[in-house]
Amino acid sequence: MSDESEVLTGAEALMRTFVDAGVDVCFMNPGTSEMHFVAALDRVPAMRGVLTLFEGVATGAADGFGRIAGRPAAALLHLGPGLANGLANLHNARRARTPLVTVVGEHATFHQQFDAPLQSDIAALAGPVSGWVRTSSSVVGVGADASAAVEAALTPPGGVATLIVPADLSWSPGAAIGRPPGPRPLLSVDAMSVTGATTALRTTKSALLLGGAALREPGLTAAARIAAATGARLLCETFPARLERGAGLPAVERIAYLPELATQQLAGLDTLVLVGAAEPVTFFGYPDTPSRPAPTGCVTHVLARPGDDAVAALEALADDLGARDPAPVAPAGSLTDPTGALDVTSFAAAIAATLPENAIVVDEANTSGVAVPAATAGAPRHDLLTLTGGAIGQGPPVAVGAAIAGGDRPVLNLQADGSALYTMQAWWTQAREGLNVTTVLLNNRAYAILHHELSKVGAVAGGTRAKAMLTLTDPTPDYVHLARGMGLTAGRARTADDLVKLLRHAYTEPGPHLIEAVL
Amino acid sequence: MSDESEVLTGAEALMRTFVDAGVDVCFMNPGTSEMHFVAALDRVPAMRGVLTLFEGVATGAADGFGRIAGRPAAALLHLGPGLANGLANLHNARRARTPLVTVVGEHATFHQQFDAPLQSDIAALAGPVSGWVRTSSSVVGVGADASAAVEAALTPPGGVATLIVPADLSWSPGAAIGRPPGPRPLLSVDAMSVTGATTALRTTKSALLLGGAALREPGLTAAARIAAATGARLLCETFPARLERGAGLPAVERIAYLPELATQQLAGLDTLVLVGAAEPVTFFGYPDTPSRPAPTGCVTHVLARPGDDAVAALEALADDLGARDPAPVAPAGSLTDPTGALDVTSFAAAIAATLPENAIVVDEANTSGVAVPAATAGAPRHDLLTLTGGAIGQGPPVAVGAAIAGGDRPVLNLQADGSALYTMQAWWTQAREGLNVTTVLLNNRAYAILHHELSKVGAVAGGTRAKAMLTLTDPTPDYVHLARGMGLTAGRARTADDLVKLLRHAYTEPGPHLIEAVL
Repeated sequence: MSDESEVLTGAEALMRTFVDAGVDVCFMNPGTSEMHFVAALDRVPAMRGVLTLFEGVATGAADGFGRIAGRPAAALLHLGPGLANGLANLHNARRARTPLVTVVGEHATFHQQFDAPLQSDIAALAGPVSGWVRTSSSVVGVGADASAAVEAALTPPGGVATLIVPADLSWSPGAAIGRPPGPRPLLSVDAMSVTGATTALRTTKSALLLGGAALREPGLTAAARIAAATGARLLCETFPARLERGAGLPAVERIAYLPELATQQLAGLDTLVLVGAAEPVTFFGYPDTPSRPAPTGCVTHVLARPGDDAVAALEALADDLGARDPAPVAPAGSLTDPTGALDVTSFAAAIAATLPENAIVVDEANTSGVAVPAATAGAPRHDLLTLTGGAIGQGPPVAVGAAIAGGDRPVLNLQADGSALYTMQAWWTQAREGLNVTTVLLNNRAYAILHHELSKVGAVAGGTRAKAMLTLTDPTPDYVHLARGMGLTAGRARTADDLVKLLRHAYTEPGPHLIEAVL
Repeated sequence: MSDESEVLTGAEALMRTFVDAGVDVCFMNPGTSEMHFVAALDRVPAMRGVLTLFEGVATGAADGFGRIAGRPAAALLHLGPGLANGLANLHNARRARTPLVTVVGEHATFHQQFDAPLQSDIAALAGPVSGWVRTSSSVVGVGADASAAVEAALTPPGGVATLIVPADLSWSPGAAIGRPPGPRPLLSVDAMSVTGATTALRTTKSALLLGGAALREPGLTAAARIAAATGARLLCETFPARLERGAGLPAVERIAYLPELATQQLAGLDTLVLVGAAEPVTFFGYPDTPSRPAPTGCVTHVLARPGDDAVAALEALADDLGARDPAPVAPAGSLTDPTGALDVTSFAAAIAATLPENAIVVDEANTSGVAVPAATAGAPRHDLLTLTGGAIGQGPPVAVGAAIAGGDRPVLNLQADGSALYTMQAWWTQAREGLNVTTVLLNNRAYAILHHELSKVGAVAGGTRAKAMLTLTDPTPDYVHLARGMGLTAGRARTADDLVKLLRHAYTEPGPHLIEAVL
């Protein structure tokens, strides 16, 4: 052990190991058992600590950061209940395959036998959302544990790694900085998979179903060359973690959320070639509706699994097919400012007409349907981040992390009202960090999707008592008040003209803004 | 199977079983997989559905309801992420030993094989907070499962029972109403325990440490008779689930939260007689501080474990000791309205001077320290509900449930600012249900307790970066705006006169109010 290691506490070793491994942002909700990590911030200036007011914000922000940066952020959480509050957005991160490191403080080892009020089974809670879980068992090992956590998070396709650190290991000296993890390359796709895909695309009615890393420009370009050469259709996951789209990029069609629409989209296909995506399944199971929307007899051919080098596989496939023409791309749309009443169409037009170049769009406004995707197809190119795991309250936190990872890139958070209320504490962090996040909140005064779902599952719900459980009125939350209470500049748009004006103002003036769009 | 059972769905059978078993309030955050429970509300009018905007509100409200009503409420949650959002307050409910039934919807059985986005291991998440977990496996069994869940929740000392119901079992017909669970009596304490306590109290310096059911009037009265006859001290848990106190009731001293104060309180004791309470331990482990604050050599004698009939045991002990004098009780205080500057002392005086008769006080203002308990010792009698498990964000939801269980009893929620931000969605439910909850929010612009904890764990934190992680400024949330945004009447008190006036107004005018007290 070196002289340095003898004075290094576990907390400081963890922080230094993270920084050496490229993990230099920590979203945190610390408590007593994490105070030494907090104290270490002043001795490890390369680590940026970002305070959140609820753990679901910390984990969601780490998800947004990882999706844009391609490397993990850390989320520092307080014991079992702190982790519990962060689980929903860790679930979304797991589904997004985001590289993310969760550090959870635990009671000091000598204290755990006493079953103090905050004692709980942290590892059990971490299991369902984590690809890797470890509890540090010695001060000297904390640095190596931190390095192993980063390595696990970065192992393709990426995932959530959770490290549990007892408080006495954080505060005790004698720790050592962990060696940075080695590179974790993508797995190569074998030639047989490529040949099989070539045959399928040449001989059957096929579609490429893209997911994960295939949804960025290189993958989309190769896929679009293949589609142009073979007539195959280009589809992508319903809820992609990160999709590059807009003018100048190849367009790809997302599989619809609603089972009946997904079934229509996939009708007539003989083969689905999976490229970093899983076989399509409906979001929920319904009476008398198959869970698989693909037609009976449609064969799935796996070109690349998640974690495989999907881009290389697509390029090899394009070459094998002799697809030499450049990929067709979406043309720039003729975007004009809408005027008059605010409805779904004018709302979408306003979003498209004002979208800045190189924006990051965080979409948790699932009820906005198809209008916005259609309107923004020819908008300036942007990254689209969606609700990968279905656990609501993902948008505002992901916007925090995306804004920090994106540097000067503007962030637009399209946000449903009911979901916003889950994690609106994120607005405070947006204000504190001065992030350029514009939140457009669609106030439809209801869990709109649930009215649809109520009928879809065959529930007889003419009754007023049932409907009251799906309605956000009486009182209607005042989102402008709520946003101002958290430190945002906030306004309300009742017309398309209002919305365009408020959007332009929000993109121009630094710091976070919220616009409530009353549809 | 009767004719009725053939048309009864699983969801309806569950609701009817609950109502028959006395579970007639359901706090809910439903999603697609729970739509049939929502639809059933119109066919089971005896079940009161209460919508919450975040699962932590539903579970915390069910905790507050159970503490006051002494019988379970149900919390209806959506899949794994919905349960995850409710876990922190289920952790508190577990520590409070509150009878509570959690119903979690799961994907339809035929859909689970497809690993759809919201799929996760619900039972694994439920385990750490639940004394009982079951996944229904047949439609015909859902009613019996519901009955078993209620029985498990009611089994002394009370606990969290979690029932997971796949959506197809909810929507399918062929279910049957479960038979209501039988009585679950408390366990009798054996004579040996009583005799041992008698000997200890007669021969050693002793204290009774009361917890659970011993903290209501009958237990307190018997304990106070014992204390008067023997000179034993009366102590209670640091964070009781429900403590009856105020003028006319025997007074009991809570063990201090801070280890150094708890050590002082327990100094000199030879025997601690545990009555429904666990041995005292510090909340956290600290360097160079023992986890047990009781003096070395102090013997613990268990008179009654949680779940034992503590009141009968105390009465038997009082008789065995020949303690025939009536119990001394706290006299009514001479409470006068404070005036002038708002500080800790005048704040406490204002709370005491205005407290209505028979109030329920939900205290999550842990930084208010000893002033409020001292000032309210002679206030009109009230129930005190505290943060049993240390998972913050407990106060506003528990106030919801306590208000519904309490009927026309006024509820006062003393609330720390940082903790309020965890579950402020509860204010909306308070507004929607028209609950007489008065929230007094102590705005100290910081996680005040953490500044203390930072030094207590020996963390060197002179640094500005560390301190920034413990400070709720830049921006300071505007709680009046936030409360109004959720539909509350809200105001700000900067003087003691303001606070008295706003408190009296809040208690007089129906519906929920928030008062931000700027100390």
